[in-house]
Amino acid sequence: MDISESYSQVIKLVDEFCDEHFNEERIRQWIESRGVPNSLYDAFFGSELGSYVMPVNAGGRACPFDERVAVTMQLTRRAGATLPFLSDMISMALLSTMRSLSQREIAEDLLPRSGRVTFSQAFSEEAAGSDASAVKTVVSLESDEIVLDGRKTFVSNGQFASDTLVLASDPIFGRADGGLSLWLVPLDTQGVSTFPLNTVGQEMLAPAMISFDRVVLDPKWQIQSEGKLASMLKRQYELGRILVCASSLGLARAAMDDALGHAASHMVKGRRLSSLPQIQEKLADMEVRLRSMESLVYHAAKLAGDGGDEARLACALMKRFVPKAATDVASEALQIFGGAGYTDETRVGRIWQDCRGNQIAQGTDEIMVDLIAKLLVSEAVRDGA
Amino acid sequence: MDISESYSQVIKLVDEFCDEHFNEERIRQWIESRGVPNSLYDAFFGSELGSYVMPVNAGGRACPFDERVAVTMQLTRRAGATLPFLSDMISMALLSTMRSLSQREIAEDLLPRSGRVTFSQAFSEEAAGSDASAVKTVVSLESDEIVLDGRKTFVSNGQFASDTLVLASDPIFGRADGGLSLWLVPLDTQGVSTFPLNTVGQEMLAPAMISFDRVVLDPKWQIQSEGKLASMLKRQYELGRILVCASSLGLARAAMDDALGHAASHMVKGRRLSSLPQIQEKLADMEVRLRSMESLVYHAAKLAGDGGDEARLACALMKRFVPKAATDVASEALQIFGGAGYTDETRVGRIWQDCRGNQIAQGTDEIMVDLIAKLLVSEAVRDGA
Amino acid sequence: MDISESYSQVIKLVDEFCDEHFNEERIRQWIESRGVPNSLYDAFFGSELGSYVMPVNAGGRACPFDERVAVTMQLTRRAGATLPFLSDMISMALLSTMRSLSQREIAEDLLPRSGRVTFSQAFSEEAAGSDASAVKTVVSLESDEIVLDGRKTFVSNGQFASDTLVLASDPIFGRADGGLSLWLVPLDTQGVSTFPLNTVGQEMLAPAMISFDRVVLDPKWQIQSEGKLASMLKRQYELGRILVCASSLGLARAAMDDALGHAASHMVKGRRLSSLPQIQEKLADMEVRLRSMESLVYHAAKLAGDGGDEARLACALMKRFVPKAATDVASEALQIFGGAGYTDETRVGRIWQDCRGNQIAQGTDEIMVDLIAKLLVSEAVRDGA
Amino acid sequence: MDISESYSQVIKLVDEFCDEHFNEERIRQWIESRGVPNSLYDAFFGSELGSYVMPVNAGGRACPFDERVAVTMQLTRRAGATLPFLSDMISMALLSTMRSLSQREIAEDLLPRSGRVTFSQAFSEEAAGSDASAVKTVVSLESDEIVLDGRKTFVSNGQFASDTLVLASDPIFGRADGGLSLWLVPLDTQGVSTFPLNTVGQEMLAPAMISFDRVVLDPKWQIQSEGKLASMLKRQYELGRILVCASSLGLARAAMDDALGHAASHMVKGRRLSSLPQIQEKLADMEVRLRSMESLVYHAAKLAGDGGDEARLACALMKRFVPKAATDVASEALQIFGGAGYTDETRVGRIWQDCRGNQIAQGTDEIMVDLIAKLLVSEAVRDGA
Repeated sequence: MDISESYSQVIKLVDEFCDEHFNEERIRQWIESRGVPNSLYDAFFGSELGSYVMPVNAGGRACPFDERVAVTMQLTRRAGATLPFLSDMISMALLSTMRSLSQREIAEDLLPRSGRVTFSQAFSEEAAGSDASAVKTVVSLESDEIVLDGRKTFVSNGQFASDTLVLASDPIFGRADGGLSLWLVPLDTQGVSTFPLNTVGQEMLAPAMISFDRVVLDPKWQIQSEGKLASMLKRQYELGRILVCASSLGLARAAMDDALGHAASHMVKGRRLSSLPQIQEKLADMEVRLRSMESLVYHAAKLAGDGGDEARLACALMKRFVPKAATDVASEALQIFGGAGYTDETRVGRIWQDCRGNQIAQGTDEIMVDLIAKLLVSEAVRDGA
Repeated sequence: MDISESYSQVIKLVDEFCDEHFNEERIRQWIESRGVPNSLYDAFFGSELGSYVMPVNAGGRACPFDERVAVTMQLTRRAGATLPFLSDMISMALLSTMRSLSQREIAEDLLPRSGRVTFSQAFSEEAAGSDASAVKTVVSLESDEIVLDGRKTFVSNGQFASDTLVLASDPIFGRADGGLSLWLVPLDTQGVSTFPLNTVGQEMLAPAMISFDRVVLDPKWQIQSEGKLASMLKRQYELGRILVCASSLGLARAAMDDALGHAASHMVKGRRLSSLPQIQEKLADMEVRLRSMESLVYHAAKLAGDGGDEARLACALMKRFVPKAATDVASEALQIFGGAGYTDETRVGRIWQDCRGNQIAQGTDEIMVDLIAKLLVSEAVRDGA
Repeated sequence: MDISESYSQVIKLVDEFCDEHFNEERIRQWIESRGVPNSLYDAFFGSELGSYVMPVNAGGRACPFDERVAVTMQLTRRAGATLPFLSDMISMALLSTMRSLSQREIAEDLLPRSGRVTFSQAFSEEAAGSDASAVKTVVSLESDEIVLDGRKTFVSNGQFASDTLVLASDPIFGRADGGLSLWLVPLDTQGVSTFPLNTVGQEMLAPAMISFDRVVLDPKWQIQSEGKLASMLKRQYELGRILVCASSLGLARAAMDDALGHAASHMVKGRRLSSLPQIQEKLADMEVRLRSMESLVYHAAKLAGDGGDEARLACALMKRFVPKAATDVASEALQIFGGAGYTDETRVGRIWQDCRGNQIAQGTDEIMVDLIAKLLVSEAVRDGA
Repeated sequence: MDISESYSQVIKLVDEFCDEHFNEERIRQWIESRGVPNSLYDAFFGSELGSYVMPVNAGGRACPFDERVAVTMQLTRRAGATLPFLSDMISMALLSTMRSLSQREIAEDLLPRSGRVTFSQAFSEEAAGSDASAVKTVVSLESDEIVLDGRKTFVSNGQFASDTLVLASDPIFGRADGGLSLWLVPLDTQGVSTFPLNTVGQEMLAPAMISFDRVVLDPKWQIQSEGKLASMLKRQYELGRILVCASSLGLARAAMDDALGHAASHMVKGRRLSSLPQIQEKLADMEVRLRSMESLVYHAAKLAGDGGDEARLACALMKRFVPKAATDVASEALQIFGGAGYTDETRVGRIWQDCRGNQIAQGTDEIMVDLIAKLLVSEAVRDGA
């Protein structure tokens, strides 16, 4: 297909890496241990592939964002599971949004060491999701001390990264940023507690809940955003959503790969599964969905850099459609396997569970719908004028 | 609502039982240990409720089948999880199909002791699902010995029940039944091995794979079906499907209960969740689905006894629609919870995983669609004549 | 099926009537001439069937509302088209809501003559739909004259009925009714103009736009609602919605009848259409939808009298689901016919066009969703308390 | 959006043409008179636009097929109706498949005069649709005369074109082509009768039924296909499907344009329609569908030339998805307009009816599904090997 052709070079690099390092047994071990071994990271960033993932200001390749998206997609497709690399990619996207900050040393301190990002992102809250304006974790001043209180959730790798980047409601230091500020808090600070989240899937992301109970902040920990935090966050969510959808696409492609392989090789009552019209219908509609997903993901990825309305629209439409469509494709694949799809004899059940999480990650439907409608209407009004 | 009113008495009994014996912590323990403690069975069958579940020929109440269905539904709704009682109910349905067998002593030996059924049902095979004609586990004669070979899957409670009832392809003893026969095989027979299945959900059913490797059968173990096996199996699948759909309905109702409770009590940006139009739309469409499910389940249950075409049609239409609709309802509930729905902080994630299994259990869509179309067309032709 | 069995007696009456009076050629003539001949009305109300339709206070049978619903459904099913009787049934429902009014003579004057209702209902407005609070047609006082201004749309039979019942915003005479009043305006009053609406379907309803341009009202024309207008309207919309959904159900059943007949009798490449899995799948899913529709319609009809929350909820859930589901069923039937379904060689194309209108008639989705959510949540809160 | 940017030049040409020649009143007249006036054809082919539509061997521009597709899409979008140009484009696609025929003079005789194609295509039959192998119109030899018998349907412009190109089952002259042959029959030949088809929509295509009752054929009328008929037909259906889907896309875009304009400018209870979440949700999901449609249509169009498996797969996936999605988009637009959408006060009702026809035109779902599954599986097997 044409889309994969455009990225055939990076996809070939990914395939070579996966041929050497991935197999189903290892994937299962990594899922069970909620993460991949350091040696895998070393191999990854030691290979040419690493340069596609590292931020440019840390020696990464100056490739367009859609190539990074293709890498995320294909890695996930080959693994048939949500990889921790997704979290690293999102963190690196965050770093790329900080390029213009003057407080350079802090930004550099955040840089990944041998690829593995050393900080987690504590952005989401239970009632807030990806909605920055609803943040309740709060910074206050108490007798000359800066104090942080609140609770963050779905912090990928939150128990293991040495530092966590906290987005806080902050009427004092966040004035220039509409009452928000960003702090890089060492996990061993007093008052910081982490709890693993038992999720339905996506175990390798090792999501955690982190609570901050009267945590005293060092002023140096604040990321000086200089009034650019809002645009930084907007850009960060945009890139994060694209990467999450790339992961969904990879998962759905993995499910399709398995379903096709199964349908082509299994017989029911003397007929090949793939010759049964009801199975054929599922396969046809899965492929239609996959191609629609692909076109939405890569279109959003190509526009990701430009910050304009069309980029925002493309991203929101993608997030609205892709994660749900991926779950649907995985569910149909599971059905094609029948009973075996519902057990760990196959990976489609796990894929289905992983897919579901991305319907929530990085922003709810509600936000997307509102944004989409506004952009469509303003475009229509402009065109009609 | 009117349907629950018709069953208000048994539902009240179930509620009293659940108030006393169920709570979320226990449910989680039972899920983890893949089954409920014996004491719960004792309490259940020691209560008036037990009489609604026991087969009539073992002292059970002579109530219509739809009351048993209501019990299954409400127990599941209260637990928010697939209960092992479902498997017992299905086994008891099987026993009820054996009423007319002459070999009375065997049938009686199969009866449950204090409610807990002592045998598992080894019917499904990997490529066969619920399709009896595709059974590959086979009985043969080798130098005067009756030998069983093959592999059964999705045997609920298959590792723990002392005996398993095996449906086999059997050109010798199954001649009167079109080449099928039924054997009650003790689990400790040589050549019988059991393996737990790690499923996506429904852990309390403790499904197992059982392999039969040159297992020598005692002729006395055969259930004398006297040419009635086909109609027995047909009836058994019909009752089994209705009970599975009752369980799906209970799961979906549990998800709806939770979603309504959450939407009514949580705020987003100062607005109650239940006042947001997108949430309202989800709730409305979930309730429409639930009522459609209810009407299909209870309609099938009411006709279940009569063995006619309308009963078969009602059952097939129900199985085609209900399990998928339940998964959809659970998925929407999960979405209403957002991130918390994807973790074990809530039970909706688990409910969603449980629901998915019933889209496969007790017969695939393919079989349903074919059966439905034939019955609809023959009805149309008859009416038009 | 059981639902039609409950109404087998009235359905038999309807069938006898239709056998004598309906055939496809006549139906087409009626559609073309936007209405049925008076002789058909005479025959209808001369038969026993008429007593099921006439209001009780005009000699009609004191039958439960669901029997009237069954009559509407079956008449529509047999015609395969939206009949003008639907409009009469809705008007009679309106009359039944006026039972308690003291101004008896006016109410009686509204009574149908030999069944054909003599007034049309001018309720809807372009921007208001069935939302009474948005009514813009307004009553004012100008130098002692009562003046009506505004424009009503989708007035069934609006050009032909001698009088039209106008719902108006009215700060003067409608004070007791929250600013609304109801006037029976003769069509030949100066300033009243009617225009036919060319609709996509439902031609026999002969919908019209009626404009009121400084129309001087006679005070005697006002229906004295005595503060009961709101509850009257609420009840009227409830009954109207149920009848519209009964019509949708009849249309969808007609489409299913035709699709089954076609699939059972036509061959493609030597195979009967009804044996092709993709056709079978359509038929199965159509029947599931039809049964869900039936259960929602008759459930709402049975509760229609009681005015409680459950009745309102049942009605709103029905309106949310049934008209859309009917269009879907008709569309699938059309597809089964292929090209012939898209021409007037069959009636399924027309049925599909008729169905679409009911997705709009008698209240939009938006209103339903809001109402449903509120009722569900308040029920949940009550149960949980 | 990027897709329209790629074609911005031709789209600008189309817009200029439409600004000058199209308005809603004219469109309605053309629909009523089942075709456009000759003067419009003259203007079209007198403009630069004509060169994008004429076949290359008749002086047309040697542009890639996707540019022609863009022209079809935009013309349809601007008209908000299926234009007769669609039929001309399909006929020209047919001519382009004849390029390699040796019987050059006949092929040239088929060429359009001033753009308007002078022949109609009599391919479809009632039970055959676009399935060539089921053709029943048959050529036979009777005492030295070549005789044609049968009935063709959905012949666009079938009553008005002077000649019709008939695809026939032909065991005599069609031997080299697997029993099929192609004849250009003058409409005034004895035994040829035409009947207009009253379709649900698409009136400008003026579809007709043509019956051939013992029509004597002149041997010179046969198109010498030299064994290439099968590949010619395959290519012709491929191009035809793409053009039909381009028309669907144009129709759906027109519906979206109207819906956005309406939602942006109308108020309900003091709130702009476009700010209501339920309307926003519709708009968002419509745009997602439109972009998926666009990507499938243009992808198929770009590959259309190459004749390989990927081109066939892209075309089948497109035909499976696009026409249905277009109807869905149009239906949502209609719903946003409410009652006005169901009348001829707007064009969305007509668009919805037009869209429906393309779900049937140029090949059923059944054929698509089978083809898609085979191509997907063979690709999967190849990749896996």
